[in-house]
Amino acid sequence: MAKFGRLIGASLGPGDPDLITIKAYKALKSEAIWSYPIRRKGAESFALQIALNAGFQLPETNMPLIFPMTHDPKKLASYWHKAAEAVLVPLSAGLDVVFLVEGDASIYSTFGHLVRTVLETEPRIKIETIAGVSSFNAAAAISGKMLVEVEDTMAIVPAGYGIKWLEKLMVDFDTLVLLKVKPLLDDIIEFAEKYDMVSQCSFIEKAGTNEEIVVKDIRTLKGKTVNYLSLIIIHNPHRQRVEIMRGCRKKITH
Amino acid sequence: MAKFGRLIGASLGPGDPDLITIKAYKALKSEAIWSYPIRRKGAESFALQIALNAGFQLPETNMPLIFPMTHDPKKLASYWHKAAEAVLVPLSAGLDVVFLVEGDASIYSTFGHLVRTVLETEPRIKIETIAGVSSFNAAAAISGKMLVEVEDTMAIVPAGYGIKWLEKLMVDFDTLVLLKVKPLLDDIIEFAEKYDMVSQCSFIEKAGTNEEIVVKDIRTLKGKTVNYLSLIIIHNPHRQRVEIMRGCRKKITH
Repeated sequence: MAKFGRLIGASLGPGDPDLITIKAYKALKSEAIWSYPIRRKGAESFALQIALNAGFQLPETNMPLIFPMTHDPKKLASYWHKAAEAVLVPLSAGLDVVFLVEGDASIYSTFGHLVRTVLETEPRIKIETIAGVSSFNAAAAISGKMLVEVEDTMAIVPAGYGIKWLEKLMVDFDTLVLLKVKPLLDDIIEFAEKYDMVSQCSFIEKAGTNEEIVVKDIRTLKGKTVNYLSLIIIHNPHRQRVEIMRGCRKKITH
Repeated sequence: MAKFGRLIGASLGPGDPDLITIKAYKALKSEAIWSYPIRRKGAESFALQIALNAGFQLPETNMPLIFPMTHDPKKLASYWHKAAEAVLVPLSAGLDVVFLVEGDASIYSTFGHLVRTVLETEPRIKIETIAGVSSFNAAAAISGKMLVEVEDTMAIVPAGYGIKWLEKLMVDFDTLVLLKVKPLLDDIIEFAEKYDMVSQCSFIEKAGTNEEIVVKDIRTLKGKTVNYLSLIIIHNPHRQRVEIMRGCRKKITH
């Protein structure tokens, strides 16, 4: 029976090539065939760019895979299927494939779609995921504020569920990380003003890249258009603390 | 005027020395004085151990700093103050200090306490935080399941706020990452059984270390004592989806 290659998801971090882990670096240097996501034919790949910025040369044999920006489930499924078919060729020939991803492969990454579709066709493929630095970890480091301390709670959410929904989360979360803030930016600023927490908000765009932008006063962004890769960290002063159980194993009674 | 050294927080990741970033690796190799947290005098340091496992030798001049396991605010403040005083000696002499932290420096890290206390005494010290791989990113990679996809929401919380509180979060979160599960483990298992989601739970202890444990059926842990560094990832099948705003800037009306 033929031996399959491994499908390796190499997280390359938020953009700074120095935030690549040694493990991902080794995977890039290995014999594995490079594969990377692009939005459409001929488009640039952010993940690939991180590897190139780290000083790597694009190997002659390489596989760009199209993951289009659409919410049409049929269209998505068709592209995922094509991507899976493509990587299954070398995998079935016993060759390893390393799929380059920006940020961390477990967090809003195209690697999930690729893995699922590959395993649907060939469940015997071995998957290896190399964890990486998420954009929000890098954003926090840049902003100079911790994300969570001691007994804090954190919610990581796309902003698009709306302000009412965010208001609800304020009861239970010390830290709110709002992703994809672009379409709701003005509403978020209004929300921060309403709850008197503008100074507890940090806006970070393209954390850990050359084009990184950090805005301490989000009110200055009113009416402006920002990049898709921008996020807002809110250190919520209105969290309602409840009792916490610490230390050793105990039975709770309520 | 004297030039101060920088205080650098170097995130070393969850334990696997290959999950150290190149940036943290460079900081360890630099001239900066090593400093690292210990729980009590003479105790081992997990953060230091990661660096040693990466092949580094402990430099002759090095500064273990005591961060005790207590919730007594007075005792904590006194130790934080001592730690800050210690690193301020080389910093005031113009020498850089690199503080080694496990996981990511922005997530439940002693670095936050050190920074705050140092800046209280000497606000001119420049802080540099090197982001790293969090334990939950590594845990997800090991478990073979994504943390979040597309429009998912994720809550990262200490388990100790109790089951009723977790039940409330189930309405809004696709993924729950429960930290410090030790004291509540049996209750969490019962909770997973009640909501018929045992198969959507992964238990991971000491992710990314030699002593890593992954448990797919958390029911097998009933009545057992687990390590402090263990977490449970729940892919919650009961999230109540609400409408999401996508794409470009729009005004929401509700």
